[in-house]
Amino acid sequence: MTEHAFDQAVALAATTPDHFTGHIPQTYGNMVGPFGGAIAATLLNAVLLHPDRLGDPVSMTVNYAGPIADAPFTIQARAARTNRSTQHWLLELVQEGQVATTATVFTARRQPTWSDGERQPPSVPSSDALSSVVPIGFPGWTARYDFRFVRGELTLDGREQADSETVLWVRDEPPRPLDFLSLMALSDVFFPRVFLRRQTPMPAGTVSITTHFHADADSLARQGGRHVLAVARGQRFHNGYFDQTSELWGDDGMLLASSSQVVYFKG
Amino acid sequence: MTEHAFDQAVALAATTPDHFTGHIPQTYGNMVGPFGGAIAATLLNAVLLHPDRLGDPVSMTVNYAGPIADAPFTIQARAARTNRSTQHWLLELVQEGQVATTATVFTARRQPTWSDGERQPPSVPSSDALSSVVPIGFPGWTARYDFRFVRGELTLDGREQADSETVLWVRDEPPRPLDFLSLMALSDVFFPRVFLRRQTPMPAGTVSITTHFHADADSLARQGGRHVLAVARGQRFHNGYFDQTSELWGDDGMLLASSSQVVYFKG
Repeated sequence: MTEHAFDQAVALAATTPDHFTGHIPQTYGNMVGPFGGAIAATLLNAVLLHPDRLGDPVSMTVNYAGPIADAPFTIQARAARTNRSTQHWLLELVQEGQVATTATVFTARRQPTWSDGERQPPSVPSSDALSSVVPIGFPGWTARYDFRFVRGELTLDGREQADSETVLWVRDEPPRPLDFLSLMALSDVFFPRVFLRRQTPMPAGTVSITTHFHADADSLARQGGRHVLAVARGQRFHNGYFDQTSELWGDDGMLLASSSQVVYFKG
Repeated sequence: MTEHAFDQAVALAATTPDHFTGHIPQTYGNMVGPFGGAIAATLLNAVLLHPDRLGDPVSMTVNYAGPIADAPFTIQARAARTNRSTQHWLLELVQEGQVATTATVFTARRQPTWSDGERQPPSVPSSDALSSVVPIGFPGWTARYDFRFVRGELTLDGREQADSETVLWVRDEPPRPLDFLSLMALSDVFFPRVFLRRQTPMPAGTVSITTHFHADADSLARQGGRHVLAVARGQRFHNGYFDQTSELWGDDGMLLASSSQVVYFKG
């Protein structure tokens, strides 16, 4: 069986316990360098592959500091602090002697507690009732996902919109069982909300994304390769930067991950 | 004129261009160690004081990795990447040879662009129409703020609530002109949402907080020392961790900062 393109993209080779080399292929290419979600997943993979790792991811922040060329890079992953059941990681992705990406990851062994889903998913048709759409105006990586929009599709017709909410079903294409790596990548699958508001292309890119994981191994296994429900909206657009928040829901209505990001734009 | 207690708390002395020493006093004490907002602001202060700093804060993530003792600590602040108008920082707070806190900060010089406040603040009475309340069940640092609750107050009467939203007006006590440091601290001023849901005390604490800044020098100056409108709610509570999102609004209705955090709880 051929390895899934996503697994090829996030693959790393350990050179020391704390250092890994990788090279995200053009299959996950974006306007400049690779799709940010693939970069984030590759950084997370360094933590998951690290021999000292304790527990599962609970929170990750990725800062996109500079472009990544279509060439190998090195990731340094360092456990800054290890407690009894939690661990804090610092990561740097370096290429040609320059730091291109930084990240922090918090991992933990979870214990059963009182639990509740306070936030609820929107009411939507099932993914089966919707058609796959190839988003316009985006390069390579979008072909690696199956997008089924409920609302908030990009038209690029230049007509300003009053709100930037998008609701869609999305999964890897071809289907791949959901894991922490693909969930991290999916949390960056939303195009910049300023495109929705202005419906016109302009330079824009995520500078920092933070994802909180609620999923555990059991809920990932239950979700498998089916579509997750993805919802995003912008908050304030101001002098070159805006923030957008998002949620990824399992098709059983459970919140798998929540995320926020700050995005650069010009125009 | 005596220095404000907040300025005393976040004060740092440079020992090298990248290293600072500090000691957050008991005036900002929490259950274990200092109030997380004061820790975050102190880390941000290292960036603001750094001779190489470029631009103003746009995004900050703080990871609380271990307790901080009532003793001096060292902060290392390193510019991992400096671009033409943006900069990415990595920070570590070390005490007794152990990393107690890590952080990343993104700073930028902003340029005028198309701007819009998509998310709107809730309709609320003005801060003048409400009384100051001292939150129950919290130690030292809460006396450093003036809290005026619109809704979502802590009762600790043990009656479970269906939602965890809190809306309040809050400012430093005594008043202090708002700046990036106090805005960062205010973004962590919300008590853990699980207390609201369960209205019972239990071990809980932020493990990671991310704040996106929309305020610039002009809007901070306009806000001055008046109350900001603070809104927070939880999303999913699951096996030891939950996420909460929040917004801080100026009294002119502009979003000054948005924030999300993941919180540990036991019970």
